[in-house]
Order: sequence, then structure tokens, then C-alpha cells
Amino acid sequence: MTQTGAPHPAVPTIENPARRTVIKSGAGVLAALGLMQFTPVARANEPASLPDYVAWKRQQDLILHGSETIETQRGAIRSGVVTPSRTLFVRNNLPAPDASITEDPDAWEVQVEGVNDPRTLNVAELKRMGATSVATVLQCSGNGRAFFPHGASGTQWSVGAAGCVVWTGVPLKNVIEELGGPVEGARFVTGTGGEEIPEGLDPKDIVVERSVPIEVLETAILAWEMNDEPLDLAHGGPLRLVIPGYYGVNNIKYVKQVALTKEETEARIQTSGYRVRDVGVSGDTDQPSMWEMNVKSWVTSPLDTTHEGRNLIYGVAFGGTKAIDKVEVSVDNGQTWQDAELIGPDLGPYAWRPFVFTTELGAGEHRIVSRATDVEGNTQPRERIDNERGYGHNGWEDHGVTVSAS
Amino acid sequence: MTQTGAPHPAVPTIENPARRTVIKSGAGVLAALGLMQFTPVARANEPASLPDYVAWKRQQDLILHGSETIETQRGAIRSGVVTPSRTLFVRNNLPAPDASITEDPDAWEVQVEGVNDPRTLNVAELKRMGATSVATVLQCSGNGRAFFPHGASGTQWSVGAAGCVVWTGVPLKNVIEELGGPVEGARFVTGTGGEEIPEGLDPKDIVVERSVPIEVLETAILAWEMNDEPLDLAHGGPLRLVIPGYYGVNNIKYVKQVALTKEETEARIQTSGYRVRDVGVSGDTDQPSMWEMNVKSWVTSPLDTTHEGRNLIYGVAFGGTKAIDKVEVSVDNGQTWQDAELIGPDLGPYAWRPFVFTTELGAGEHRIVSRATDVEGNTQPRERIDNERGYGHNGWEDHGVTVSAS
Repeated sequence: MTQTGAPHPAVPTIENPARRTVIKSGAGVLAALGLMQFTPVARANEPASLPDYVAWKRQQDLILHGSETIETQRGAIRSGVVTPSRTLFVRNNLPAPDASITEDPDAWEVQVEGVNDPRTLNVAELKRMGATSVATVLQCSGNGRAFFPHGASGTQWSVGAAGCVVWTGVPLKNVIEELGGPVEGARFVTGTGGEEIPEGLDPKDIVVERSVPIEVLETAILAWEMNDEPLDLAHGGPLRLVIPGYYGVNNIKYVKQVALTKEETEARIQTSGYRVRDVGVSGDTDQPSMWEMNVKSWVTSPLDTTHEGRNLIYGVAFGGTKAIDKVEVSVDNGQTWQDAELIGPDLGPYAWRPFVFTTELGAGEHRIVSRATDVEGNTQPRERIDNERGYGHNGWEDHGVTVSAS
Repeated sequence: MTQTGAPHPAVPTIENPARRTVIKSGAGVLAALGLMQFTPVARANEPASLPDYVAWKRQQDLILHGSETIETQRGAIRSGVVTPSRTLFVRNNLPAPDASITEDPDAWEVQVEGVNDPRTLNVAELKRMGATSVATVLQCSGNGRAFFPHGASGTQWSVGAAGCVVWTGVPLKNVIEELGGPVEGARFVTGTGGEEIPEGLDPKDIVVERSVPIEVLETAILAWEMNDEPLDLAHGGPLRLVIPGYYGVNNIKYVKQVALTKEETEARIQTSGYRVRDVGVSGDTDQPSMWEMNVKSWVTSPLDTTHEGRNLIYGVAFGGTKAIDKVEVSVDNGQTWQDAELIGPDLGPYAWRPFVFTTELGAGEHRIVSRATDVEGNTQPRERIDNERGYGHNGWEDHGVTVSAS
């Protein structure tokens, strides 16, 4: 990473002796970090229980893929403009830090670099620099990965690695202005997560550090609340860098450093990770990075079975950095379409819009699909675009549901 | 109650033998219904625990006045456009029915009368009649009662018998239209709660049954969700009649009947309860009923102490059935005022708007007050209007906070 106004970012020191293992490669790294997928225990009707750090969540709304990868059930999103915190998905690239970091949130420190007056600020100081609230869709880059037939590696998310929540924090531009503004030549906002890096690993291979175009200064916030509650550890508390309309990975949890930089970070999660490339191709910096989200929608109800006759079809739609213009629904797998109604309050361009469509369903199976269009005229395609890691899937066909009416 | 198109509303039968007590009067009624205020147990630092039906709530956000009267801490409302369900206040006029009624929400039945085709509908049927979502402030008529110097009887609410939540349900007018429309001469919407009425009491003295002007048909909904979750028993699940912009008591929980009526109900909660009258005067039908809420605001942070220098003053403001136009803040108890900034997404005219005001506070005590104005130009008065039961208090002076900066 070429950084403006500061040396290489400090990597947080390891405080947990239990993790001081020397690890060399791939699967060993994952295992040591506790990131292997759960191997379901063979006891019928007895789901694995939630890990301690998310024990406060509502298990019946969730699918446990792993300790750091927890999906929201498709049916748990109802008509909601705001996803309840206890229903929201979780995805960590590294195990969450110790919960003690949220005990005194105001004491958490973030180093601000790449400005004319670089400083380390704690949350208490940030709270004096202004406040705003913004509703955003938080969505994992791999949401929809389960639909790729080539078996894209990574968590097999269906639709539930997404939610819409309200963040409160200070606009990042306020902070940058208070510290003298960006240094000359800065082109990226680079955020660094506060996760522990085990000894023996090259920090660049592990650190959660992402760069996004500096234009996000207009909308980014450093958030200490989500859904009107102090930001929980599971969602990046005490402080998270929120980039409205950008995929989840760019929304750095437990953010320890924000730097305005001339180049993108050289962390592996940026250089080869989260890059869209053809199946079988390795990640590289000349491929598109998972930044802005594309237009997307899906049906949330009914899912499997329903009654004959009049039915209300529910779903959610969002346009990433662009507001939703319309949502169409088809009950014949896209042969004919009709406009759905957007319902509930509009929480702004980065929020999702619940929709409802009233129709008659005869006895038998129906393939129900939805197709959203944003205000710039971008419409969901029918097909998925195959890519190695199964990123950014917004094809409407795969996201449909087959419902049996009787 | 003079009712159109139906006999006197059926009072729910008593299903809990434990409550089959013959009770004659006043305090005995309250005691039998479990509505006496808590007598704190004399164990220091050990707060009374939440009653079972609200055990899922976040106790540290709440003040327990009684088993059916639970207030949100002033400091627990942060900058939130939506109050988390586990932080929301609770106020029941009667003990909540048995939790079993929410086990199969779709089976709950509501009788619809005063229409050309009166029917009993279950929630599953209602769900086919349309759906919408609306954000409303839910506020008890007695919110602010604690500030009345004459010691108005009832729960001593400060500011926390209020919250802003999102309801999802069917527009009541859809239901009325499907049932042939209102009968001629209907002037009120009368909702009846599904609480048990103990034997030996005159139902009219006890039943939670309220009438509101029929104009609310434009906005009322029968709601089965709150904040994107199935409506909990504590907040009126399986089904609640929501009247946007009207005081809480009109938002009938576990609603068993909705009738379009020529006259207001003769239930005591309507004829003498929730009437604004001078101190010492009994309630009567010629006094104003607690229907539409008035314009109101209060500061939520800081509360007691803060730092010298730059401070952000937070609060919430709402206008009942009218949207908020502006909020002013004064840090010298109303001698000088400045406009605050409304922050976060606007959830519509019935929602509250969080506000923030940035100011410098020198060392010492400051009396911080806020004053909201709605879009029709109604501004909070300085003074409270004394009234027997301490209803509808929106005077800005009493709602201020004294903060010590050092």
C-alpha cells in the first residue's frame, strides 16, 4: 500500500495468547482463525447454537454457515424497511475481536492519515464533530453465491447475506475537514479493521483493509450506532466505516485507521480478493473490485406453499448507490410482468424498498420472480454472470421462488 | 354504545379460571387485575425483573413502574428514527391476554361491524386484503404526567412513554370496502380489545374500547407486524388497530372487533376516561377526548453531565398527525433559540424526527430546552396546561434538562 502522509498502517498487536500459533498456509490459516465451515453435528432437529458473540440474536431467523458467517432466513425478512438487529446477517473476514472493546465505546481510537493534520481520535472526540443518520443496505459481495453452478468457493449464501439498517455517526468529511483536508493526490479512502493478526502470518495476507474511491467522502460515515443502539461487536462496534451503497467488505468493522491514500492498499483482500474474474482465473488488480452494489431484488413471501386465489407477493429491492425506480413481478417465470407497489416509508437512496404485488394463483406450481430497475434505468438481467468467486449476482431468474398453491 | 349494524359488542369470555374472582370496586379491581404499582423490594442495586411477557426486552433501557407500565429511559433514545422493539415502552390498560394467542397469529379473529356486509375475519384473510407499512409515534396520553405539580394520578411518566415504530398491516379502508362500505350514518371507528374481563365486573367499566372519528379510515391499519417482526403480545399481537397520529389508547391491542358506529362507545374508558378537564373535575363526554397528539419534542442527550466546549444536543420531535417543520433549541432556558438540524431519513408525517444541535457549553449548569413547530404552524407552548389526569403535556419548559458541564 502506498500511503499518503503516514507509514505502513500499524497492525494491531496480538493480545490473545491462545491465538499465538505459527501458521503457514491456506487451510491451516482458516482453521487457526476458526473460519472453517461448521460440520453439522448429526443430531436431528437440534441446530448448532449461536456463537457467544451473537447469542443475543434470534436463532430462528438465521442460518448458521459458520461461526463468522450467519445468514438471515429468506422468510425472516417480511415487509421491513429496517431489518431488526437480531435478524441481521453476520459475515466476518476474521474472528471478531474480544467483546471487551465495546465496553467503553468512547475510548476506541481511530488513526486518521492522509490529511494535513493527521491524528488519532477517540470516539468521544468524533462525537463532537457532527452526527447524521443514514439507512443503507448492507450486503455481502457473495450474496447469491449458492446459485452458481460451478460451485464458487466461499459461504453458500442464498439471499440472506443482506439487510437494511440505519447507521448513526459522524460524516467522514467532517472529520477530514477538521484535520485540514486531504493531502494532495489522495484518490482513495482506505480503512483498516481492528482484528487481531496472528503471529507468524504476513499481515498483508490477513488484514481487513480496503480502499474505495475518494468520492465516497460525500456519503461515508464513521458510525457508532446501528438501529438506534450502540453498535454491537457483531456488526463492527465500537466504530464502523460505513460506505453507503458499497458491498459489505468495504464497510470496515472495528475501524482502527482511515487513510486518504494515493493508491489502493496492497492488502490481499484488495489486490486479489473481492475481484470479479472469469471462472478459473486468479484475482488481480486489473479486475473490477467489489465496490458499488448493483440493482437487485428478491421475493420474500410466499416461499414454498400458499393458498389458491388471491395472494400478496412480498419482496425487497435496492439499487446500491441509486434509488429504486420500479419493481416488476412475474408469476410465470418472466413471460409476463406487472408493476409491484413499493410500500412503507422511503428511507433514502441507499435503503431497500419493500414491495408488494397482489395476484391470483391457481392450484399448482408457480415460478415467481421479481425484477428491479434503478433511477438510472439499470434493470436486473435475467442471467447470472458467471465469475470465479460468485460475486455480485443480481440475475432475476435464479432469485425466483417456486411456490405450490393448493 | 350505540352501534350501527350490530348488537352490543361481545365481550371476550374468560378462559383463565384463576381470574374468576368476584370483585366489587376500585382498589380491589386494580389489585385483582394486577395493575397496582410495584412496591420495590428493598434490595439495593437489584432492580425488579421484567414480567415474563416482556422478558425479551432490554431491561437497562427501561423503567419499571408496574407490570403493565414500563417506560423507556430518556437516554435510551439516541438518534433513532425507529425505536428498537426491545427498548419500546409498554402500557396496558388491562393485563395482557395469555401469550398463547400469538402462537398462531393467522387464526386470530376480528369481528367487523357497522359495514354493509358484517363479518368475522381472521388474520390470514386480512393478509389477502392488502398491505402497507407506516411509521408512527406511539405515545401514552399521560406521557409527561410526572411534571404536573398537583400530582395527577396515574403512572408518573416522564418522556419515555413514547417511541417511533413501523407497523405493517392492511389499510382498514380496504377491509371496509371489501365488506360493502360503512353503513349510513357511521361517524366513528370503534375498536375493542381482546383482554379478559373478570367475572362480576360490568364490562363497560373495564373493556378497552375506544371510538375515534371516522376520518381515520384514510390512515388506520390493522397491523400484524411491528418493526419487521410478527407483532408481539406486549405490543398488541396478533393484531392491533393502529391510528396514526392518535394517542396510544386509541391503538387497540389484540383487537377483537372493529365497528363503524353512529355514536362513541359507552365504555368508561371513552365516556369519562381519557378526557381533558380541570383539576378536581370528573371526566365527562363534553370534555375533549385524547385523540390526535399535539406537537412535542424533548432532548435525549446530554442529560446530567457533559464536557465543556463543543457539544451536540440530541432529541426527537413529532407533530401527531402533522409533519414537523422545525425544531429550535435553547441552552439558556428559552431566552434565546436557534434552529436544530433534523437528521436521518424522514419516515413520514406520523414519525418522529431526530434532531441535533451543535453548541459550545461553558463550565457550569445549563438548562437545555427544545421547541418544535409542525407544518401547520403549531408550536409547543412554554407552560403545561394543568388538567386533572395530566394528559397531553407538551410544554417545553418542563421537558428541558439541566446539564452540568465541566
